[in-house]
Amino acid sequence: MSESHASAPRVSAPYASAPMYVNPYATHLDKTPANYQPLTPIVLLERAAAIYPDHVAVIHGNARMTYREFFARTRQLACALSQRFIGPGDTVSVMLPNIPAMLEAHYAIPMTGAVIHSINTRLDAAVIAFQLDHANTKVLITDREFSPVMKEALKLAKVRPIIIDCHDREFPQTGEALSSLDYEVFVSNGDPEFKWRMPDDEWDAIALNYTSGTTGNPKGVVYHHRGAALMCYSNTVSTSMLKHPVYLWTLPMFHCNGWCFPWSLSTVAGTHVCLRWVRATSVYDLITEHKVTHLSGAPIVMATLLNAPEAEKKPIGHKVQFITAGAPPPAALLGAMTAAGFDVTHVYGLTETYGPAVVNEWQAAWNAASADERAQKQARQGVRYPALEALTVMDPVTMTQVPADGETLGEVMFRGNIVMKGYLNNKAATDEAFEGGWFHSGDLGVLYPDGYVQLKDRSKDIIISGGENISSIEVEDAIYSHPAVLSCAVVARPDEKWGETPCAFVELKPGATVTKDEMIAWCLERMARYKAPRHIVFAPVPKTSTGKVQKYVLRELAKQV
Amino acid sequence: MSESHASAPRVSAPYASAPMYVNPYATHLDKTPANYQPLTPIVLLERAAAIYPDHVAVIHGNARMTYREFFARTRQLACALSQRFIGPGDTVSVMLPNIPAMLEAHYAIPMTGAVIHSINTRLDAAVIAFQLDHANTKVLITDREFSPVMKEALKLAKVRPIIIDCHDREFPQTGEALSSLDYEVFVSNGDPEFKWRMPDDEWDAIALNYTSGTTGNPKGVVYHHRGAALMCYSNTVSTSMLKHPVYLWTLPMFHCNGWCFPWSLSTVAGTHVCLRWVRATSVYDLITEHKVTHLSGAPIVMATLLNAPEAEKKPIGHKVQFITAGAPPPAALLGAMTAAGFDVTHVYGLTETYGPAVVNEWQAAWNAASADERAQKQARQGVRYPALEALTVMDPVTMTQVPADGETLGEVMFRGNIVMKGYLNNKAATDEAFEGGWFHSGDLGVLYPDGYVQLKDRSKDIIISGGENISSIEVEDAIYSHPAVLSCAVVARPDEKWGETPCAFVELKPGATVTKDEMIAWCLERMARYKAPRHIVFAPVPKTSTGKVQKYVLRELAKQV
Repeated sequence: MSESHASAPRVSAPYASAPMYVNPYATHLDKTPANYQPLTPIVLLERAAAIYPDHVAVIHGNARMTYREFFARTRQLACALSQRFIGPGDTVSVMLPNIPAMLEAHYAIPMTGAVIHSINTRLDAAVIAFQLDHANTKVLITDREFSPVMKEALKLAKVRPIIIDCHDREFPQTGEALSSLDYEVFVSNGDPEFKWRMPDDEWDAIALNYTSGTTGNPKGVVYHHRGAALMCYSNTVSTSMLKHPVYLWTLPMFHCNGWCFPWSLSTVAGTHVCLRWVRATSVYDLITEHKVTHLSGAPIVMATLLNAPEAEKKPIGHKVQFITAGAPPPAALLGAMTAAGFDVTHVYGLTETYGPAVVNEWQAAWNAASADERAQKQARQGVRYPALEALTVMDPVTMTQVPADGETLGEVMFRGNIVMKGYLNNKAATDEAFEGGWFHSGDLGVLYPDGYVQLKDRSKDIIISGGENISSIEVEDAIYSHPAVLSCAVVARPDEKWGETPCAFVELKPGATVTKDEMIAWCLERMARYKAPRHIVFAPVPKTSTGKVQKYVLRELAKQV
Repeated sequence: MSESHASAPRVSAPYASAPMYVNPYATHLDKTPANYQPLTPIVLLERAAAIYPDHVAVIHGNARMTYREFFARTRQLACALSQRFIGPGDTVSVMLPNIPAMLEAHYAIPMTGAVIHSINTRLDAAVIAFQLDHANTKVLITDREFSPVMKEALKLAKVRPIIIDCHDREFPQTGEALSSLDYEVFVSNGDPEFKWRMPDDEWDAIALNYTSGTTGNPKGVVYHHRGAALMCYSNTVSTSMLKHPVYLWTLPMFHCNGWCFPWSLSTVAGTHVCLRWVRATSVYDLITEHKVTHLSGAPIVMATLLNAPEAEKKPIGHKVQFITAGAPPPAALLGAMTAAGFDVTHVYGLTETYGPAVVNEWQAAWNAASADERAQKQARQGVRYPALEALTVMDPVTMTQVPADGETLGEVMFRGNIVMKGYLNNKAATDEAFEGGWFHSGDLGVLYPDGYVQLKDRSKDIIISGGENISSIEVEDAIYSHPAVLSCAVVARPDEKWGETPCAFVELKPGATVTKDEMIAWCLERMARYKAPRHIVFAPVPKTSTGKVQKYVLRELAKQV
């Protein structure tokens, strides 16, 4: 019995009125290396490799890598990077498809204390150059498929990173080497027993992902080890992963670090099935050959699978979980997916929330509903992920929750440990995003009586095409740069294949003449192909009395184009 | 682009050589309420109640409680406790069987900031009194089944807690009320919308559990919110829990907070099936009636089920996970359990590790082995839990790992976030337990080439009977107190039903005479029934030249008694 008991208050006295009181539960009970370690996904790989060294961790073409080999290679790469003095505060950028090197980078770079910056492989040279400079890239690992655009980007960029060329032995690419450093040679120089570095703090950065966000200026979203580790558990629970799942990489790993699945699979010693290009025939082949249990992607991936020629399809003899995000899955698509052997789970999130942070949790009671009602329920974005503290829809001015009536519009807000650390070198944007103690998603939605959230619009006019965000303002800027243009506005147009495509409304200067094809060509010279408008409408742009473009009018018009 | 880039080092210069360098990933990227919240299992219940309000959370006899009701009642109880000024630094003790009130206490007490102290319901009055005093109990919730022993304990204790009598409506008990406060009335005074208190810090204490440990003096093991939350994910993953598991409470919740399962089930919105007494007939009835998916317990529970009269058994038509700990399951038992419809998972841990922190992860390759080989593999304690950073066997003097040869003895050591905060008011014991940055389990074991750990002995002579720890020293102290005793030593004797029972070797003073029955009766007056020796051997106690009792000799002799 310690003396502190003597001075403890009597039961009937309030805690606060005893100033001499020492909380015994906060005395001599400090953090030590025995009972406190930073949360990080790296230890989950270490654990999987220790327990299941011979289990196949990665499949790529005819190549196989066990967990023993996978963990050894990540340490080799980490060692080789450390030998180049890469460490905390440094950025290593990767321009890689869904191949083993991309998985290795997800562990090896954080093992040095550095940050992995995944580049969207569809971007144009100017945006890539901006990112390299903004991230102050020290090392760039780049696949030869992207040598042409990367060569251009490096010319535009101010930074001079160490360049490592990645040459895929399974699917050789013809792009030129950009340096004398070959990825395989670089890795082989590292020590497979390298003592990797635990983060000093679980709040340390692990990844950097650029989002087009609300304007054409990309913002660098920073993730930390704590959030990535909690996503591992949340993804496992939310997608019903038991031990040894088989995950097919139809989702780009450059997209929010593949929703953190490169790390999550280590929690349950799963097998990654790599995929350089999403083609229906290879997806069906891989699902049946490797008994794939899980895959993810935008609705475009589902459409690709369902609309494939019958010759490319294969009957799937087992249940496959398909986790989709980006746009609510239509009823017909859901029905067809179920018939094809898939269980579809609808999730939602932003780059700022490590990918999915909201899941459409299925209620047993919905099974009795009609197909249409079920699809309506499933079209809603849903409820918070296990590791997300809170999700709600609020009036962003008063910061009060909207009525849960399924009708009142508000801004979707997030709070919790799987919300980003903030925007890199952008204090103003970070402060704005976190104003009032909530992450402001910029998405407009409603709250239903059962607590489910549904998106109704995107307050900042992002167009989501094939799962990728397109800033309407960026496209408008390019059109505005044309000498004949007086006014313009770009909105999303629903598209069966891509979900949405950009549709531009253009008002020409008096007397000027430009054709639709000329305007599209103008755009293609100035931005990545997927961002360029598919449709051009020459018409006056409707504005409010204060001069604001009425995009909701244009969105209606766009549907009829 | 911020100015910090200008002062960043060139790629070729080592990070450390640039003193002016500011780490951009640690600048203006601080914790805010939007992106940082303390980890706590309470939010998992809040989430389950928000998403699945109508799902049954608790079954007890004919009573049912949905998640909406369960969450409301925990807030009512938390409110009622707060009205009595219970808050951070306070202890609320509970002496409850596996009934709904025990589940409610696990959430409601931490919701106030206070700490839940679960009392082993089999303890005697003196030990209970010691715990109440040491914990400085402010409120005691006690079931009428235990009124006699609790009345005695309260007479012995110095503290004067508020006493709340719990009266089970489903299984009424005849013990007298110890106060005028009835649990149901107390709860009903609370506000079901009570704004519960988030812990100020995830390092704040959530629970207190006394272990007999190495001596007769119980030590108070303190858990924190962080560890409890991580156990929720670890338990879910390690026991293959998908959404909506049904968990039967054969494991006492007073035992390491039921291995954290009272909290873990909220992660996946599971159903708790309460159980006041473990009887084979009710276990079979409940498993089949409620389609139980998981249950846990010491091997005694398995033996109880298998050895039940055929009339009490029921065929189980579905797979049931049985998670066992306490002693390695023998091959015959495993075979019989499999035949009866159970999948057995062997786990291991200590009170200091929140219950299970080691799991015998099953390898697919073992399926091809003979039944004996499989049982040998399964008898090993295993590998670390997902949330445990490291597990090893070391020479406790040199703190170096023993060879992984399956033969060299060492002390089993733990490190990670599911190791206790420390011992309450016992800095010396805490420091000793965490010496060298590892938690010293006191258990002796070996490390196999595949990394699996197996216990070989308990360095500190704990006897595990029916899953409960018995300190041999405590029993020896009682025997020594007999005037006729010269010397004595108590060791574990293998027992088919209980795993182990205490066996006492007693050397009488010259000329003294005591019968075995008299000696057992002497012990029963001084300790809980389960701690009293089942066998007494009157013989000289073998000692080393320095006077240390040679317990390893006695353990061999005990087997032959």
